[in-house]
Amino acid sequence: MTDLLTALAGVVDKSGLLTGDDIGRRYTDTRGHGPAGTPAFVVRPTSTQEVSGILKICFHAGRAVVPQGGMTGLVGGGAPGEGEVVLSLERMNAVEGIDDSGRTMTAEAGVVLETAQSVADDAGFMMPVDLGARGSATLGGLISTNAGGNRVIRYGMMRQSVLGLEAVLADGTILTSMNRMLKNNAGYDLKQLFIGSEGTLGIVTRCVLRLAPKPLSTCTALVGMDKFESVLSYLSLLDTKLGGGLGAFEVMWSKYYDFVRERCPNLKPPLTPDHQFYVITEFLGADPDGDADKFENLLETASSQNLIQDGVVAQSESDREDLWAIREGAGEGFRTLSPMFTYDVSMPILTMDDFGRRAEADIEGAFPGATTLILGHLGDGNLHAVISVGDGSADAHKKVNDILYGIIRDLGGSVSAEHGIGTEKRDYLNWSRTDAEVEVMRMLKRTLDPKGLLNPGKVI
Amino acid sequence: MTDLLTALAGVVDKSGLLTGDDIGRRYTDTRGHGPAGTPAFVVRPTSTQEVSGILKICFHAGRAVVPQGGMTGLVGGGAPGEGEVVLSLERMNAVEGIDDSGRTMTAEAGVVLETAQSVADDAGFMMPVDLGARGSATLGGLISTNAGGNRVIRYGMMRQSVLGLEAVLADGTILTSMNRMLKNNAGYDLKQLFIGSEGTLGIVTRCVLRLAPKPLSTCTALVGMDKFESVLSYLSLLDTKLGGGLGAFEVMWSKYYDFVRERCPNLKPPLTPDHQFYVITEFLGADPDGDADKFENLLETASSQNLIQDGVVAQSESDREDLWAIREGAGEGFRTLSPMFTYDVSMPILTMDDFGRRAEADIEGAFPGATTLILGHLGDGNLHAVISVGDGSADAHKKVNDILYGIIRDLGGSVSAEHGIGTEKRDYLNWSRTDAEVEVMRMLKRTLDPKGLLNPGKVI
Repeated sequence: MTDLLTALAGVVDKSGLLTGDDIGRRYTDTRGHGPAGTPAFVVRPTSTQEVSGILKICFHAGRAVVPQGGMTGLVGGGAPGEGEVVLSLERMNAVEGIDDSGRTMTAEAGVVLETAQSVADDAGFMMPVDLGARGSATLGGLISTNAGGNRVIRYGMMRQSVLGLEAVLADGTILTSMNRMLKNNAGYDLKQLFIGSEGTLGIVTRCVLRLAPKPLSTCTALVGMDKFESVLSYLSLLDTKLGGGLGAFEVMWSKYYDFVRERCPNLKPPLTPDHQFYVITEFLGADPDGDADKFENLLETASSQNLIQDGVVAQSESDREDLWAIREGAGEGFRTLSPMFTYDVSMPILTMDDFGRRAEADIEGAFPGATTLILGHLGDGNLHAVISVGDGSADAHKKVNDILYGIIRDLGGSVSAEHGIGTEKRDYLNWSRTDAEVEVMRMLKRTLDPKGLLNPGKVI
Repeated sequence: MTDLLTALAGVVDKSGLLTGDDIGRRYTDTRGHGPAGTPAFVVRPTSTQEVSGILKICFHAGRAVVPQGGMTGLVGGGAPGEGEVVLSLERMNAVEGIDDSGRTMTAEAGVVLETAQSVADDAGFMMPVDLGARGSATLGGLISTNAGGNRVIRYGMMRQSVLGLEAVLADGTILTSMNRMLKNNAGYDLKQLFIGSEGTLGIVTRCVLRLAPKPLSTCTALVGMDKFESVLSYLSLLDTKLGGGLGAFEVMWSKYYDFVRERCPNLKPPLTPDHQFYVITEFLGADPDGDADKFENLLETASSQNLIQDGVVAQSESDREDLWAIREGAGEGFRTLSPMFTYDVSMPILTMDDFGRRAEADIEGAFPGATTLILGHLGDGNLHAVISVGDGSADAHKKVNDILYGIIRDLGGSVSAEHGIGTEKRDYLNWSRTDAEVEVMRMLKRTLDPKGLLNPGKVI
């Protein structure tokens, strides 16, 4: 232990190595997602070379290393095990540059999303990925979880933004694949290995991200609909007529909308509670003079086709924020729910109505009086469920997991759409993946991390 | 040999196994890209199970297997070695279905691109990827080379279209990852291993592709520009103002345009030959009534900013085809060039002017009187070069390779943007990739194909 500490102290500066009481809650607080042990040390490198030095030492010593970004993950992917070494990328937080003609940003892994968004904005571009944890989540964390968020239907997941990256392998080998081009077919695309693998195959230290042109207009509406078929037709209408400009298509099932009306007094849901589905759609356009009319005309078309029964269009940025708050700001309501289990699943869009009905029926069958709230990124095939049942025991949680993931398995869906597997969903990985798939994952893990030292116990 | 033949005959039907003189030129014609030997057999399975059966037999016999699609590759990736077993996917050519709400197509690997495009079109959607070889290239080939083409700036490479796939590993293991959702973070994204790895890690047998909404309008223009900086500004203008609708941004250097005027009498280049760059831009829109005006207004803006010196806008589909023919239909001219070496490279867009100048100067310095024609998908960071020098000897070819790829190495570019590595570029892979990258590629190859039987000698 002392040898290890001495060796690590030779790699990072004094403030780069924390032990004992100096290890703050930042490094162990998983916000309820997975148990965390007490790390032996926290190492805070300032360069890829230092990360390499740390991993070499740990590789030779056979010590497990847990990489950490902003600790906003929702599946326990950053939770340290007892006595493990935490490697925090928080000090690698420089945006290295913007290439205007290539529309790229080069940055270190510890850059906070909001900072990257601001730098991109100042340069006249937009970071494609956005999500609620923007104030803490880091680029490295977004890459290692292949984060999604609210604009996936338009810009894809984080994977689609990553042109290049630098990662350090378990033995300290630095793998620099800082490609800046949209096209590069020179051999295997190695960066894909590190995107979405939650730090179990290598630690991402730097990246090249593709930026998007900044939208010049934003139009947002909330509509109420009575039939699931109408939701699908409305999605298809916007998808076709907005020329790729559909930026969000978020659906709230009626029970969620009712819940917001009853439990979130600070929110202002403007529509009556008598619809089956409530849909927030956002059009990101490039014609500030004509886009609002275009958007309202489409809503009128949808209304004349009897797809939507009621609706409001945001007339100001403040209106827009109020509409999004119905979808994203229900935290105060959730705090009245205890226990509360949350889910992030994906499935073919056509099966979502079935999913909603079965989830409500099966959970209320097993737990009379249960609360089952469903909402999410319908346009991406991704729903979230918030479920409050029973006594909050591990048994109850497992029973709800088995019900929910059982339906997902039947529908050919995935137990994780955008949050990852971490420790929380590890037991259910094979409900969405075949034995052959899991075995190939294990083969990759053994190949790249033969001693099993990188983020052990996560994913597989 | 007889044992192997007997075993294979037990897996496929009579027309699924070709030997001797029954092996047609289809299986050995690489159209000048890489030498081809005479295959021992050609096996033509009709299902994933048959592919698995074939690979199991070859694995136990230690026989090399070369997967083949439409044989339109440009780097020798499908060329059989002497005595190897060719596995042609040509009989696995069924489109299995379209999911309207998920906007996906499920298909077998041997489906020809044009067929897939037509099925998508009939269903009201568009296949995102398009390229000249659409009449022969297959989905499996497009996936295994991560094909690009003319619409990458809008829709990405083939990788971006693949939601799921099924592949068979070297030992016959069937890996079914037929994900249909935009989001699926359940463990490592294994499909990425098989996209762009040219059949060296597994053989793709089926796929799920994401389709695009069909554009409702197409506007095309050819403009002439005098300065490279203007090309960049024009790209930025369209990128910003077309709201994601920029479908193509193709640039031809002046020597290429002059070449077309002189050597391609069937083409009709409408602009005078006194510009430095000729740019074809295409706007794929969703507003048939307003898009033409919007596009012409943008061209006027570019003209008033002195970015473009001359230009024509297609007024009909026939006009549009004539403009694209200048970019794509120079085959008759190329046939007057002998020898002819062709290149597919990528680099940061900002460095392209430098690339063009250095390529012309260095090649003409080494080979006085050389022809150096440059054109390509500038918006994607991807250029092609057509070079005619010397006597066409292997020495001359190597010298041109060394010059071109040397410049690319200096500029931080890639020796392959969209064609792959195959056999043709294998010796230059490490001009674009670090030793660490190549070693990780080898690790993956050893892990997934421990006997080195899948498409041996390709890529690495």
